[in-house]
Amino acid sequence: MTRTVASSRQGVYIDDMAVGDAATFAKTVTEADILLFAAVSGDTNPVHIDQDFAAATPFKSRIAHGMLSASFISAVLGVRLPGPGTIYLSQSMRFRAPVRVGDTVVATATIKTLDVDKRRVTLETVCKVGDTVVIDGEAVVMADRRPTA
Amino acid sequence: MTRTVASSRQGVYIDDMAVGDAATFAKTVTEADILLFAAVSGDTNPVHIDQDFAAATPFKSRIAHGMLSASFISAVLGVRLPGPGTIYLSQSMRFRAPVRVGDTVVATATIKTLDVDKRRVTLETVCKVGDTVVIDGEAVVMADRRPTA
Repeated sequence: MTRTVASSRQGVYIDDMAVGDAATFAKTVTEADILLFAAVSGDTNPVHIDQDFAAATPFKSRIAHGMLSASFISAVLGVRLPGPGTIYLSQSMRFRAPVRVGDTVVATATIKTLDVDKRRVTLETVCKVGDTVVIDGEAVVMADRRPTA
Repeated sequence: MTRTVASSRQGVYIDDMAVGDAATFAKTVTEADILLFAAVSGDTNPVHIDQDFAAATPFKSRIAHGMLSASFISAVLGVRLPGPGTIYLSQSMRFRAPVRVGDTVVATATIKTLDVDKRRVTLETVCKVGDTVVIDGEAVVMADRRPTA
Protein backbone atom coordinates (compact mmCIF):
# COMPACT_ATOMS: atom_id res chain seq x y z
CA MET A 1 0.00 0.00 0.00
CA THR A 2 1.32 3.39 -1.01
CA ARG A 3 0.93 6.14 1.53
CA THR A 4 1.40 9.70 0.31
CA VAL A 5 2.45 11.95 3.15
CA ALA A 6 2.37 15.23 1.28
CA SER A 7 1.32 16.04 -2.25
CA SER A 8 1.35 19.22 -4.29
CA ARG A 9 -2.14 18.16 -5.41
CA GLN A 10 -4.18 17.96 -2.18
CA GLY A 11 -4.72 20.59 0.44
CA VAL A 12 -6.40 20.43 3.84
CA TYR A 13 -10.02 19.24 3.78
CA ILE A 14 -12.46 21.57 5.51
CA ASP A 15 -13.63 18.60 7.59
CA ASP A 16 -10.17 18.48 9.15
CA MET A 17 -9.92 22.21 9.96
CA ALA A 18 -10.53 23.95 13.27
CA VAL A 19 -10.88 27.62 14.17
CA GLY A 20 -7.43 28.85 15.17
CA ASP A 21 -5.52 26.66 12.71
CA ALA A 22 -2.81 28.73 11.05
CA ALA A 23 -0.20 28.52 8.31
CA THR A 24 2.61 30.79 7.21
CA PHE A 25 4.68 31.58 4.16
CA ALA A 26 7.79 33.74 4.39
CA LYS A 27 9.80 35.38 1.65
CA THR A 28 12.66 37.83 1.58
CA VAL A 29 11.87 40.63 -0.85
CA THR A 30 14.69 41.13 -3.32
CA GLU A 31 15.48 43.67 -5.98
CA ALA A 32 14.54 41.05 -8.55
CA ASP A 33 11.11 40.53 -6.96
CA ILE A 34 10.28 44.21 -7.26
CA LEU A 35 11.43 44.43 -10.87
CA LEU A 36 9.58 41.25 -11.86
CA PHE A 37 6.46 42.39 -10.03
CA ALA A 38 6.61 45.74 -11.85
CA ALA A 39 6.86 43.87 -15.15
CA VAL A 40 4.09 41.38 -14.45
CA SER A 41 1.66 43.87 -12.89
CA GLY A 42 2.41 46.86 -15.09
CA ASP A 43 2.77 48.90 -11.89
CA THR A 44 5.81 51.01 -12.69
CA ASN A 45 5.03 53.64 -10.04
CA PRO A 46 8.37 55.44 -9.57
CA VAL A 47 8.25 54.89 -5.80
CA HIS A 48 9.15 51.29 -6.66
CA ILE A 49 11.70 51.76 -9.44
CA ASP A 50 13.04 55.34 -9.36
CA GLN A 51 15.39 55.97 -6.42
CA ASP A 52 15.63 59.74 -7.03
CA PHE A 53 11.85 60.03 -6.96
CA ALA A 54 11.50 57.77 -3.92
CA ALA A 55 14.10 59.79 -1.99
CA ALA A 56 11.77 62.81 -2.12
CA THR A 57 8.78 60.88 -0.74
CA PRO A 58 7.95 60.24 2.95
CA PHE A 59 9.40 56.74 2.41
CA LYS A 60 12.88 58.19 1.65
CA SER A 61 13.82 55.20 -0.53
CA ARG A 62 12.18 52.74 -2.88
CA ILE A 63 9.54 50.47 -1.41
CA ALA A 64 8.06 47.20 -2.60
CA HIS A 65 4.59 47.06 -4.13
CA GLY A 66 1.93 46.50 -1.47
CA MET A 67 0.38 43.92 -3.77
CA LEU A 68 3.68 42.01 -3.84
CA SER A 69 3.43 41.39 -0.11
CA ALA A 70 -0.28 40.69 -0.57
CA SER A 71 0.64 37.98 -3.06
CA PHE A 72 2.35 36.09 -0.23
CA ILE A 73 -1.12 35.77 1.36
CA SER A 74 -2.23 34.14 -1.88
CA ALA A 75 0.72 31.75 -1.47
CA VAL A 76 -0.29 30.76 2.08
CA LEU A 77 -3.87 30.10 0.99
CA GLY A 78 -3.04 28.43 -2.31
CA VAL A 79 -0.18 26.23 -1.12
CA ARG A 80 -0.62 25.67 2.64
CA LEU A 81 -4.06 26.34 4.14
CA PRO A 82 -6.36 25.25 2.62
CA GLY A 83 -3.80 24.63 -0.16
CA PRO A 84 -4.56 22.93 -3.51
CA GLY A 85 -8.27 22.89 -4.26
CA THR A 86 -8.82 26.31 -2.67
CA ILE A 87 -11.07 28.72 -4.51
CA TYR A 88 -10.31 32.33 -3.58
CA LEU A 89 -13.55 34.27 -3.01
CA SER A 90 -12.51 37.57 -1.46
CA GLN A 91 -9.71 39.46 0.24
CA SER A 92 -9.57 42.69 2.18
CA MET A 93 -6.35 44.33 3.23
CA ARG A 94 -4.95 47.45 4.80
CA PHE A 95 -1.42 48.47 3.90
CA ARG A 96 0.02 49.50 7.24
CA ALA A 97 3.75 49.99 6.68
CA PRO A 98 6.22 49.91 3.79
CA VAL A 99 8.35 46.91 2.79
CA ARG A 100 11.87 47.42 1.42
CA VAL A 101 14.45 45.32 -0.40
CA GLY A 102 15.97 42.88 2.06
CA ASP A 103 12.90 42.73 4.32
CA THR A 104 11.55 39.28 5.07
CA VAL A 105 7.77 39.23 4.95
CA VAL A 106 6.01 36.54 6.99
CA ALA A 107 2.43 36.01 5.81
CA THR A 108 0.16 34.18 8.24
CA ALA A 109 -3.41 32.99 7.69
CA THR A 110 -5.45 31.94 10.74
CA ILE A 111 -8.89 30.37 10.51
CA LYS A 112 -11.57 32.62 12.07
CA THR A 113 -14.78 30.89 11.01
CA LEU A 114 -15.76 27.67 9.24
CA ASP A 115 -18.99 26.82 7.44
CA VAL A 116 -18.58 23.17 6.48
CA ASP A 117 -21.92 22.91 4.65
CA LYS A 118 -21.13 25.86 2.41
CA ARG A 119 -17.39 24.93 2.33
CA ARG A 120 -16.56 28.54 3.35
CA VAL A 121 -13.49 29.38 5.39
CA THR A 122 -12.77 32.88 6.70
CA LEU A 123 -9.16 33.57 7.61
CA GLU A 124 -7.42 36.48 9.26
CA THR A 125 -4.47 37.38 7.02
CA VAL A 126 -1.49 39.26 8.36
CA CYS A 127 1.91 40.08 6.86
CA LYS A 128 4.69 41.11 9.19
CA VAL A 129 8.31 42.26 8.86
CA GLY A 130 9.79 41.43 12.24
CA ASP A 131 7.21 42.68 14.74
CA THR A 132 5.76 45.28 12.37
CA VAL A 133 2.43 44.53 10.74
CA VAL A 134 2.75 45.60 7.10
CA ILE A 135 -0.64 44.25 5.93
CA ASP A 136 -3.68 43.06 7.82
CA GLY A 137 -7.01 41.88 6.50
CA GLU A 138 -9.31 38.97 5.89
CA ALA A 139 -9.73 36.29 3.24
CA VAL A 140 -12.72 34.12 2.37
CA VAL A 141 -12.06 30.92 0.46
CA MET A 142 -13.89 27.75 -0.53
CA ALA A 143 -12.18 24.50 0.50
CA ASP A 144 -12.66 20.87 -0.53
CA ARG A 145 -14.66 18.45 1.57
CA ARG A 146 -13.16 15.07 2.37
CA PRO A 147 -14.46 12.61 -0.24
CA THR A 148 -16.95 10.13 1.22
CA ALA A 149 -15.83 6.51 1.20
CA MET B 1 9.85 77.94 -20.82
CA THR B 2 9.75 74.19 -20.65
CA ARG B 3 6.33 72.62 -20.35
CA THR B 4 6.17 68.97 -19.32
CA VAL B 5 3.01 67.40 -20.61
CA ALA B 6 3.38 64.04 -18.93
CA SER B 7 5.97 62.75 -16.50
CA SER B 8 6.53 59.41 -14.87
CA ARG B 9 7.14 61.39 -11.68
CA GLN B 10 3.88 63.28 -11.09
CA GLY B 11 0.39 61.95 -10.78
CA VAL B 12 -2.97 63.72 -10.58
CA TYR B 13 -3.31 66.17 -7.69
CA ILE B 14 -6.34 65.57 -5.49
CA ASP B 15 -7.29 69.23 -6.04
CA ASP B 16 -7.79 68.41 -9.72
CA MET B 17 -9.93 65.28 -9.19
CA ALA B 18 -13.70 64.94 -9.33
CA VAL B 19 -16.02 62.13 -8.33
CA GLY B 20 -16.58 59.97 -11.38
CA ASP B 21 -13.08 60.44 -12.82
CA ALA B 22 -11.78 57.10 -14.04
CA ALA B 23 -8.65 55.49 -15.43
CA THR B 24 -7.91 52.07 -16.89
CA PHE B 25 -5.02 49.71 -17.38
CA ALA B 26 -5.34 46.67 -19.62
CA LYS B 27 -3.07 43.66 -19.95
CA THR B 28 -3.30 40.38 -21.77
CA VAL B 29 -2.44 37.55 -19.39
CA THR B 30 0.22 35.30 -20.88
CA GLU B 31 1.75 32.00 -19.90
CA ALA B 32 4.86 33.94 -18.87
CA ASP B 33 2.85 36.19 -16.54
CA ILE B 34 1.45 33.21 -14.66
CA LEU B 35 4.85 31.55 -14.32
CA LEU B 36 6.55 34.77 -13.22
CA PHE B 37 3.75 35.53 -10.77
CA ALA B 38 4.07 32.03 -9.29
CA ALA B 39 7.80 32.62 -8.86
CA VAL B 40 7.51 36.09 -7.36
CA SER B 41 4.58 35.31 -5.05
CA GLY B 42 5.51 31.78 -4.08
CA ASP B 43 1.96 30.77 -4.99
CA THR B 44 2.56 27.49 -6.80
CA ASN B 45 -1.02 26.25 -6.31
CA PRO B 46 -1.36 23.49 -8.95
CA VAL B 47 -4.52 25.08 -10.36
CA HIS B 48 -2.12 27.65 -11.87
CA ILE B 49 0.76 25.44 -12.99
CA ASP B 50 -0.42 21.79 -13.21
CA GLN B 51 -2.72 21.15 -16.16
CA ASP B 52 -3.63 17.59 -15.10
CA PHE B 53 -4.68 18.85 -11.67
CA ALA B 54 -6.57 21.81 -13.11
CA ALA B 55 -8.47 19.58 -15.55
CA ALA B 56 -10.09 17.82 -12.58
CA THR B 57 -11.28 21.08 -10.96
CA PRO B 58 -14.48 23.01 -11.73
CA PHE B 59 -12.28 25.35 -13.82
CA LYS B 60 -11.36 22.49 -16.24
CA SER B 61 -8.03 24.13 -17.13
CA ARG B 62 -5.35 26.25 -15.53
CA ILE B 63 -6.38 29.70 -14.35
CA ALA B 64 -4.37 32.81 -13.52
CA HIS B 65 -3.78 33.84 -9.92
CA GLY B 66 -6.55 36.15 -8.68
CA MET B 67 -3.85 38.36 -7.20
CA LEU B 68 -2.27 38.72 -10.64
CA SER B 69 -5.40 40.42 -11.95
CA ALA B 70 -5.58 42.35 -8.68
CA SER B 71 -2.09 43.65 -9.37
CA PHE B 72 -3.46 45.43 -12.45
CA ILE B 73 -5.56 47.53 -10.03
CA SER B 74 -2.30 48.48 -8.34
CA ALA B 75 -1.03 49.52 -11.78
CA VAL B 76 -4.02 51.80 -12.45
CA LEU B 77 -3.65 53.47 -9.06
CA GLY B 78 0.14 53.67 -9.08
CA VAL B 79 0.62 54.80 -12.66
CA ARG B 80 -2.60 56.54 -13.80
CA LEU B 81 -5.01 57.73 -11.10
CA PRO B 82 -3.79 59.14 -8.81
CA GLY B 83 -0.44 57.91 -10.26
CA PRO B 84 3.01 58.73 -8.85
CA GLY B 85 2.81 60.02 -5.30
CA THR B 86 -0.09 57.70 -4.41
CA ILE B 87 0.07 55.96 -1.05
CA TYR B 88 -1.99 52.77 -1.06
CA LEU B 89 -4.02 52.51 2.16
CA SER B 90 -6.46 49.66 1.61
CA GLN B 91 -8.05 47.39 -0.95
CA SER B 92 -11.01 45.05 -0.87
CA MET B 93 -11.83 42.64 -3.65
CA ARG B 94 -14.12 39.81 -4.57
CA PHE B 95 -12.89 37.27 -7.09
CA ARG B 96 -15.93 36.75 -9.29
CA ALA B 97 -14.73 34.70 -12.27
CA PRO B 98 -11.56 32.97 -13.45
CA VAL B 99 -8.98 34.48 -15.83
CA ARG B 100 -7.14 32.25 -18.30
CA VAL B 101 -4.10 32.55 -20.54
CA GLY B 102 -4.95 34.80 -23.45
CA ASP B 103 -7.62 36.76 -21.60
CA THR B 104 -7.23 40.53 -21.64
CA VAL B 105 -8.01 42.03 -18.25
CA VAL B 106 -9.17 45.64 -18.18
CA ALA B 107 -8.77 47.19 -14.73
CA THR B 108 -10.74 50.38 -14.10
CA ALA B 109 -10.63 52.66 -11.08
CA THR B 110 -13.41 55.23 -10.67
CA ILE B 111 -13.41 57.90 -7.96
CA LYS B 112 -16.30 57.44 -5.53
CA THR B 113 -15.45 59.91 -2.77
CA LEU B 114 -12.84 62.62 -2.18
CA ASP B 115 -11.65 64.11 1.09
CA VAL B 116 -9.26 66.86 0.04
CA ASP B 117 -8.35 67.90 3.60
CA LYS B 118 -7.33 64.36 4.54
CA ARG B 119 -6.01 63.69 1.01
CA ARG B 120 -8.12 60.50 0.92
CA VAL B 121 -9.55 59.13 -2.33
CA THR B 122 -11.92 56.17 -2.44
CA LEU B 123 -12.14 54.41 -5.79
CA GLU B 124 -14.35 51.64 -7.12
CA THR B 125 -12.01 49.06 -8.65
CA VAL B 126 -13.25 46.61 -11.26
CA CYS B 127 -11.44 44.14 -13.51
CA LYS B 128 -13.25 42.80 -16.53
CA VAL B 129 -12.55 40.29 -19.29
CA GLY B 130 -14.87 41.37 -22.07
CA ASP B 131 -18.20 42.01 -20.32
CA THR B 132 -17.47 39.63 -17.44
CA VAL B 133 -16.50 41.14 -14.11
CA VAL B 134 -13.63 39.04 -12.77
CA ILE B 135 -12.86 41.23 -9.72
CA ASP B 136 -14.77 44.00 -8.03
CA GLY B 137 -13.92 45.96 -4.93
CA GLU B 138 -12.78 49.25 -3.50
CA ALA B 139 -9.47 51.01 -2.92
CA VAL B 140 -8.56 53.84 -0.57
CA VAL B 141 -5.44 55.84 -1.37
CA MET B 142 -3.76 59.05 -0.28
CA ALA B 143 -2.98 61.50 -3.09
CA ASP B 144 -0.74 64.56 -3.33
CA ARG B 145 -2.13 68.07 -3.00
CA ARG B 146 -1.15 70.66 -5.57
CA PRO B 147 1.81 72.58 -4.17
CA THR B 148 0.90 76.12 -3.19
CA ALA B 149 2.60 78.85 -5.24
